Amino acid sequence: MRKMLTENQGHLVASNKEYAKHFTSGHLPIPPAKKYLVVTCMDARIPPMAAYGIELGDAHVIRNAGGNARDAYRSILISQHMLGTTEILLIKHTQCGMLTFTNEQGRKIVNGHQGHEVCGPDFDFQPFSDLEASVREDVKWLKECGGVVKGGMVSGWVYQCEDGMVKQIC
Amino acid sequence: MRKMLTENQGHLVASNKEYAKHFTSGHLPIPPAKKYLVVTCMDARIPPMAAYGIELGDAHVIRNAGGNARDAYRSILISQHMLGTTEILLIKHTQCGMLTFTNEQGRKIVNGHQGHEVCGPDFDFQPFSDLEASVREDVKWLKECGGVVKGGMVSGWVYQCEDGMVKQIC
Repeated sequence: MRKMLTENQGHLVASNKEYAKHFTSGHLPIPPAKKYLVVTCMDARIPPMAAYGIELGDAHVIRNAGGNARDAYRSILISQHMLGTTEILLIKHTQCGMLTFTNEQGRKIVNGHQGHEVCGPDFDFQPFSDLEASVREDVKWLKECGGVVKGGMVSGWVYQCEDGMVKQIC
Repeated sequence: MRKMLTENQGHLVASNKEYAKHFTSGHLPIPPAKKYLVVTCMDARIPPMAAYGIELGDAHVIRNAGGNARDAYRSILISQHMLGTTEILLIKHTQCGMLTFTNEQGRKIVNGHQGHEVCGPDFDFQPFSDLEASVREDVKWLKECGGVVKGGMVSGWVYQCEDGMVKQIC
């Protein structure tokens, strides 16, 4: 017998059924047509395709807590070396959760919830206290990491949750 | 003087300007309203919000190469323990690039492009050869990793790039 679906699972199934009725993009190839990738935050308030103008099939979209470059490294290598992208747009945002806690606080919260040590003293949540400095640092890290494709472009941006605008940092 | 924008950067700026004109979501709080998070692939052909019915403000969306659970771990800890999500929908997809190469091939390609060793012999791209088995394995890993919030739900799905449908695996 089929398991009961949770509310969120049921919503996925129902809305996907509607989406699939109008599905027309089965012809798209795997490599992104415009050869770029976006690294941005997982934040629930950001709709990357709409806010950043990403058309279906054009770009890889990597999302994690903070729009973090190091965390995206494996994906970036695959995007660039297996699937031909040559440009990275790294887009962090204002009001990011990563601005609100330190590593020590984070470890205490997680370990407290779980009742045992899930995050050891070296666990790095990669929080930051200065948004624009963090964009610059991640772009610098990408340029120096050795894995970005030769001649590849990397730029850094901030999305403003207050008004929906992006601005270039570097 | 302002640097010339690349074509993709120019497209970001121009389409974001249009987006911001109709921006109305500045009131949304940071924690996802429906307390769930989606882990899915960075693939350019997947529009998660449309295909999975994710409304703005409702869910964190984590994307990486393959919709990989281990890679998403830091983000999942933050989503659940700092921002209150309690449910994970892990959604991999057919025709995934991760089905097309082995670790050894990946390391050879990257190191060959860069002209020096970027990926050592232990570098793991987390490729897989059986899609549904990989979904099950990632869900199992999440359930056993110790970091998923107590009482939290985890389910595994496949999105079909051929017809836009999702199906539940576990």
